[in-house]
Amino acid sequence: MAHEKVKAKLAELGLELPVAAAPVAAYLPAIKNDKLVFTAGQLPTVNGAISKVGKVGSDVTPEEGRDLAQICALNVLAALSLVCDLDDVVQVVKIVGFVNAAPGFTGLPVVVNGASELFLHVFGEAGRAARSSVGVAELPLNAPVEVEAVVALR
Amino acid sequence: MAHEKVKAKLAELGLELPVAAAPVAAYLPAIKNDKLVFTAGQLPTVNGAISKVGKVGSDVTPEEGRDLAQICALNVLAALSLVCDLDDVVQVVKIVGFVNAAPGFTGLPVVVNGASELFLHVFGEAGRAARSSVGVAELPLNAPVEVEAVVALR
Amino acid sequence: MAHEKVKAKLAELGLELPVAAAPVAAYLPAIKNDKLVFTAGQLPTVNGAISKVGKVGSDVTPEEGRDLAQICALNVLAALSLVCDLDDVVQVVKIVGFVNAAPGFTGLPVVVNGASELFLHVFGEAGRAARSSVGVAELPLNAPVEVEAVVALR
Repeated sequence: MAHEKVKAKLAELGLELPVAAAPVAAYLPAIKNDKLVFTAGQLPTVNGAISKVGKVGSDVTPEEGRDLAQICALNVLAALSLVCDLDDVVQVVKIVGFVNAAPGFTGLPVVVNGASELFLHVFGEAGRAARSSVGVAELPLNAPVEVEAVVALR
Repeated sequence: MAHEKVKAKLAELGLELPVAAAPVAAYLPAIKNDKLVFTAGQLPTVNGAISKVGKVGSDVTPEEGRDLAQICALNVLAALSLVCDLDDVVQVVKIVGFVNAAPGFTGLPVVVNGASELFLHVFGEAGRAARSSVGVAELPLNAPVEVEAVVALR
Repeated sequence: MAHEKVKAKLAELGLELPVAAAPVAAYLPAIKNDKLVFTAGQLPTVNGAISKVGKVGSDVTPEEGRDLAQICALNVLAALSLVCDLDDVVQVVKIVGFVNAAPGFTGLPVVVNGASELFLHVFGEAGRAARSSVGVAELPLNAPVEVEAVVALR
C-alpha cells in the first residue's frame, strides 16, 4: 500500500518508482530525523549505471540534462522510500541541483527544472521547494547532474 | 509593522528591503517548515537584473564580489520576508556562499563576508551563522556569487 | 567528562580531538538549533595551517585527499564540540564533501570516504549519513577538500 499516490502520479508520466541504489561507501541514501528527511546526492543512474556521462553544454545538451535531472529526482524518491512512505511527504523543503557544467554553460536552472517539475507533478504544490542550482567542476562517475533534497513528513 | 526592526537596521546602511524576485520555474524563494526557513539560492539581482556578471578574480574584483554578496544577502532577506516576519528570526543557522571563481582565485571567504556582515549588522550576534564558502565552475545567468540560507524563527 | 566516548574512539585510531579553529570572519564553526547542529565547512587544517594544498587528481593524490578528508572530519568534530557534547550525537544526518577537483578527476567519493569512515568509526552506525560528493572549481586557501555536516542530538 505504501507510496500508492506517488506511484499513481509517476504512472501518469509512464514512470515507475525505482529501487534505491545501494550506497558503495559508508553512507546511506536517506536519513530521517524527526519529521525531516535528508537525501544523499542522487545521480542519474538507471539499474546502477549512469544513463549518459559528461558535461552539460558540451557532451550533453541542456534538454538531455533536464531529462537526466528527472532521473535524479526519481532516485531521490527511491532514496526517500527507504525511510518513509512517500505519501506522507507534506513538503519538498529544499533541493540543490549540482550541474557538471561545460565552461561557459550558465543555463543551469533549465537543467534542474527536470527535477523540480517531477516533484511538482508528483506532490502538487507541495513539490515546489526552495532551490539552488550551481555549476560544478566534476561529479562522481562523470555524471552530468546530481540532485539532493530535504523533505518534510506529516 | 512587519520587519520593522530589520528595515530600521537596513536603513542605517542606506539599504532597503527589496521585493523578492518571482521564481522563473517550479520552485519557491523560501520554504518555512515548523521553526526553520530554507531559502533558494539568491543571485545579486537588483530589479530583476544581475548587477554585474562574470567570474570573481578576473571579470569581477574580490571587493566587487563582496558587494554583490551583500546584494545576495538582501535577496535572502526578501525571500524570507515572503514566509515570515524578519523580526522573528532568532538565528541565522547556516549560509552557503557559492562563488563563480576564476581559475586560481581562492579568496572566497572575503567575497562571502559581504553576506555574513550584512546578517551580522541586521540581526546582531544572531546573524553569525555556520558557513561554507566554495568556488564553483558556473552560476545561473553568469552571476559572480549565489547565497542560500537556513534560519530559525522564534 | 565531555566527549569521553568519542575521544576514546579517536584514540583507537591514534587521533585526538582538535581544538576548533577560530573563524576569521563573521560566522561561527557550528550552530545548534533545537536538536540539530549545522557546522561550517571545515578545511583540512592542523594547528591552523592547511596540511597540503592543491587539486585532487593532480597536486594531491586521491589517497592523500582521503586522508585530508579525515582531517576535515576531525575538524567537524571540533566544531561540534563547541556547542554540544559529542557523546550526545545520535545521528550524523547529512554531510557534503566539496572536492577541489583537477580537470577530469571524478573519483570524488573515494576522497570523501575519508570523512565518512571516520564518522562510522566514531559513532558506529549512527555515523552513516546521507552524503553528497561534488567536485568544485576552487576552495578557500586552495584546500583540496572541505566537509560540512548536520547532526542530530539526543
